[in-house]
Amino acid sequence: MSDFDFKAYLKERQAVVNKQLETILNSLDKERELTRAMAHSLMAGGKRLRPILCLAACEACGQDPVVALPAASALEMVHTYSLIHDDLPAMDDDDLRRGIPTCHKAFSEATAILAGDGLLTHAFQVLTRPGNLFERLPDPAVRLELTAILSEAAGVDGMIEGQMLDMLSQDRDAAALPSSLDHLEKIHTLKTGMMIKASVLSGAVSAGAGPDTQERLAVYAEKVGLAFQVKDDILDVEGDPAVMGKPAGSDEAKNKMTYPALMGLEPSKGYAEELVNEAVEALNNFDEKALPLRAIAEYILQRRR
Amino acid sequence: MSDFDFKAYLKERQAVVNKQLETILNSLDKERELTRAMAHSLMAGGKRLRPILCLAACEACGQDPVVALPAASALEMVHTYSLIHDDLPAMDDDDLRRGIPTCHKAFSEATAILAGDGLLTHAFQVLTRPGNLFERLPDPAVRLELTAILSEAAGVDGMIEGQMLDMLSQDRDAAALPSSLDHLEKIHTLKTGMMIKASVLSGAVSAGAGPDTQERLAVYAEKVGLAFQVKDDILDVEGDPAVMGKPAGSDEAKNKMTYPALMGLEPSKGYAEELVNEAVEALNNFDEKALPLRAIAEYILQRRR
Repeated sequence: MSDFDFKAYLKERQAVVNKQLETILNSLDKERELTRAMAHSLMAGGKRLRPILCLAACEACGQDPVVALPAASALEMVHTYSLIHDDLPAMDDDDLRRGIPTCHKAFSEATAILAGDGLLTHAFQVLTRPGNLFERLPDPAVRLELTAILSEAAGVDGMIEGQMLDMLSQDRDAAALPSSLDHLEKIHTLKTGMMIKASVLSGAVSAGAGPDTQERLAVYAEKVGLAFQVKDDILDVEGDPAVMGKPAGSDEAKNKMTYPALMGLEPSKGYAEELVNEAVEALNNFDEKALPLRAIAEYILQRRR
Repeated sequence: MSDFDFKAYLKERQAVVNKQLETILNSLDKERELTRAMAHSLMAGGKRLRPILCLAACEACGQDPVVALPAASALEMVHTYSLIHDDLPAMDDDDLRRGIPTCHKAFSEATAILAGDGLLTHAFQVLTRPGNLFERLPDPAVRLELTAILSEAAGVDGMIEGQMLDMLSQDRDAAALPSSLDHLEKIHTLKTGMMIKASVLSGAVSAGAGPDTQERLAVYAEKVGLAFQVKDDILDVEGDPAVMGKPAGSDEAKNKMTYPALMGLEPSKGYAEELVNEAVEALNNFDEKALPLRAIAEYILQRRR
């Protein structure tokens, strides 16, 4: 991996994703309050992990990543909607996100609810009516499959149920919960893991990959998704607030179940490393076009925010 | 229309829709808080106007309405999500809906936000992964078109923008707004009209109707959608609270722009009648299979809730 400049790759891909999201926003009336609220959160400088995973998976399957741009954009829009709704006063009640005011702080609670609804709904419009936004489009059956993958991962047996369980778990004494590590893993798989897996699979489906390839990429995605969440919990304990754009220790203050709380800080780090190794192993049959996917797995371990 | 028993038709179709929605809910884990909250609002005894319009349009195009059941179910789920979010304290702050406590009153605000998100997302899952819920399925291209129609009508250039404008208009002195009748019509077209049109078009698309037929049905739907909203405003002034399941005069109390407020009660009634006549005229080229569509237009004028 020595001759692969991951930092440059990441920067280039973030720029590609940002440009595409801006094109989508520009297709809406920018003077509207609703569009401004959606843009506030969508262009707030996220890592773009999901769309970049989607593009990298498409690339690993031997296709030009441009065919995965509709799916990549839709995934980031759905991710952003989930952040907007999770931040609401009735939910996690967060004032800051990515270093700037959350959507309901910058606008109003009602506008934030609608901006979230708008991003979620528009993601499906991007997949089904891409118009002239994208140069090369997969056929209807592929686009229908992308819509199905997204609605499953984001839905009531995926991300939404994960947020529901996460909320319910915060009200309880974590130590008193039976087999809480299993419960924590379940929450993460639902809340974060399924969307990460959907990102990788959407890239593969956009590329027209067969079931064997999809299965191997699914293993990669499951490991990477869990590693990402373990690392998130670690960063909340020892991350630099200036880099993260939010205060450290907020999980502990909220009595949230976390890996460091349940298994200790050092064992959590060991676990994250193990997961990343397993993720990279799942890519054994892929050629050098899977370099970015391998680098993303390593990056998840190294990241500071 | 004398030998057509509309009351019996409506009852039978409501039962078909309710059964289908129950089948969809049964495919989820019913013990979960999230499922219970979704079921609370979805099975609260709505009129099922949108799904019944969808089935009737399919029928008018000469097809067995069963092929339109996926679209009909998805439309009602999206309609119900919009009611749950509109009722939230940060939005219209309503305690009662269809005579029972609103979702956030029966559960919690956070649960209501997630239940709405869940219904919206699951609607797209129903269209894209119908599983064995539906016996006869349209092909992928048709299902992709249904997904596109739904995401457009419910999205940021449709229902969501309508709710946004509706909220903004409530804070103002209606009389001081320039050309407020135009503005009111715009809000209704976005907030209600586009979903009603989507309902009719989804039925036609499910039936495989051509562009000419779709265009005539679109005119019918536009007129019917507006008539429905004018009648809604009229009912808020003179409706029976016991029948409606909510207090009368709530629009006036909130300083909402309404047809009776802007053009007077009697002229509003005349306008609703005119619209329904135009809707029925648009069906001139259809045979007796369009009887239910004609009866629905008349029903909109007569309804008491």
